[in-house]
Amino acid sequence: MRIPFHELKAEFKRVLLSLHFTDAKAEACATIFAENSRDGVYTHGLNRFPTFVGHVKGGLVKPDEEPTKEGRFGALEQWNGNYGPGMLNARFCMDRAIALANESGIGCIAIKNTNHWMRAGTYGWQAAEAGLIGICFTNTIANLPPWGGLDPRLGNNPLVIAVPRKEGHVVLDMAISQYSVGKLMQYKSKGEALPLPGGYDDEGNLSTDAAGILESKRILPVGFWKGSGLSLVLDLLATVLSGGNSTAKITQSGAEAGVSQVFICIKPSSGQQTTSLIEEIIAYTKTSAPENADSSISYPGENTLKTREKNLREGVLVDEKIWEVVKGL
Amino acid sequence: MRIPFHELKAEFKRVLLSLHFTDAKAEACATIFAENSRDGVYTHGLNRFPTFVGHVKGGLVKPDEEPTKEGRFGALEQWNGNYGPGMLNARFCMDRAIALANESGIGCIAIKNTNHWMRAGTYGWQAAEAGLIGICFTNTIANLPPWGGLDPRLGNNPLVIAVPRKEGHVVLDMAISQYSVGKLMQYKSKGEALPLPGGYDDEGNLSTDAAGILESKRILPVGFWKGSGLSLVLDLLATVLSGGNSTAKITQSGAEAGVSQVFICIKPSSGQQTTSLIEEIIAYTKTSAPENADSSISYPGENTLKTREKNLREGVLVDEKIWEVVKGL
Repeated sequence: MRIPFHELKAEFKRVLLSLHFTDAKAEACATIFAENSRDGVYTHGLNRFPTFVGHVKGGLVKPDEEPTKEGRFGALEQWNGNYGPGMLNARFCMDRAIALANESGIGCIAIKNTNHWMRAGTYGWQAAEAGLIGICFTNTIANLPPWGGLDPRLGNNPLVIAVPRKEGHVVLDMAISQYSVGKLMQYKSKGEALPLPGGYDDEGNLSTDAAGILESKRILPVGFWKGSGLSLVLDLLATVLSGGNSTAKITQSGAEAGVSQVFICIKPSSGQQTTSLIEEIIAYTKTSAPENADSSISYPGENTLKTREKNLREGVLVDEKIWEVVKGL
Repeated sequence: MRIPFHELKAEFKRVLLSLHFTDAKAEACATIFAENSRDGVYTHGLNRFPTFVGHVKGGLVKPDEEPTKEGRFGALEQWNGNYGPGMLNARFCMDRAIALANESGIGCIAIKNTNHWMRAGTYGWQAAEAGLIGICFTNTIANLPPWGGLDPRLGNNPLVIAVPRKEGHVVLDMAISQYSVGKLMQYKSKGEALPLPGGYDDEGNLSTDAAGILESKRILPVGFWKGSGLSLVLDLLATVLSGGNSTAKITQSGAEAGVSQVFICIKPSSGQQTTSLIEEIIAYTKTSAPENADSSISYPGENTLKTREKNLREGVLVDEKIWEVVKGL
């Protein structure tokens, strides 16, 4: 079913106010949750809202806390998230990175003791809206085995790279796992095969069987050994730059709370030359002959924009059962 | 066969001097080529040297040119490589990024009109040796189809992320293609199957047959659609920040010259806390049970260090035929 955007947002806000969020914080959090669903990232919009409420009630997420500065050297700052709402901390950090980049060309914020930021791409869109290149990543609880290993020891550490563009920002939002656990569970419950291998079965063979992959816990990182290495270095950067919890510490704590994140902004030249270069790259990419009649070549963020427009026009697609749950909160 | 490191380097230097490189430039270039072979990256050491000489003779690489500054805003600088030797330009840029990060916590250099930097990892090791986090990437000629397309329109745009560490730096050096063209040709000539799918055959099926993949030109990006998007945004960043040639322009020029690159350095806190966090992450990753008796879990750069030590001890492994070619140059 479809719900008007403002109704979705109002419902989130109502629940957050009942949890003693201030009006400003309830408004900001509700907006992010509603926008995530509006943009088609339902897993980190409506569908995740009940879990977020659970984390607030359980004390993992502390609505009253604000980020505090721990250190600054030039255009590099360390902040402490104090276990506040991850989306608000992340939005704050990207705003600081934007300010630093506007002062110094480039700026970097590392934050420790923050919480799940929901959709990673949110903060890429934020930087791009401000006319800046945005790069951000987070560590997570361990959910991928390192290359050559059987047990999960690496996070899927989502990485975002966003480039501002007049006709629609380019926003890459990729986790290091080929498919998320949520996606694997979706395929498992539908009894459908994954379109492409997403992990290993119990015998160590590449597999498209989501149920078998979830059982073996051997979820595939992008590019096999390459994604394994990329996940490790992103955790190193987030942890070292913030002085915060690593994937190791988060996993050992038993709950995905108090994660570490990095936000980098870079100020590109504005003006016609930049615009032309971006359009040249996108146009050239699209000259590749499509694989088949159904396939089309799109840049990262292009489909998000289409989904956004449709969801704003026709109402945001919601899972009826979860919508009922939220209305009952 | 194995050749002592100093002999390999001396031979490169002799050839470069005969091409009218200054003594300092010949020394610097020879060192980088010899170190690439020493570290086991033979494809971008000895094996690539004859091609580099050809590019110098053909005028694609101009040994007399130096990088010149085009712009600066805070800790972000634009440089022009003036088609000088790519390795020297890249080394220069990472040195500038190191200096900026030492001043401002973070620094970014974008360079246009530069040339192939040989092994991407070289500049990650350089940053790490200086005690800094180094991130760099380059665009290339088109060699990968975008997701959903048949014709190559994206570069394999190598990405490096390096973290300094007392017991051996962590240096991720990954191209966006699952296997390089060089690696595919190696498997083809040996008639061996790839260990894992590396592209598509002519029927559009994932394949481990290197010959078929080279024929279809459908080399796989890491993580399918994810690597396709990552390659595109890296090209956007390199091109937009430097104001230089995109993969489109490079490909249309017919030769891989005048590429665009980005070098970012970040200054981590020094001291015991950082050391402990790095060791905690590496140690935890290695607690994953190995997949089988032969497998081991290593961090990016760990095997490079082992190869380096062996090649320094026993002599650098060289392809005898290519070594003879170089001695005849």
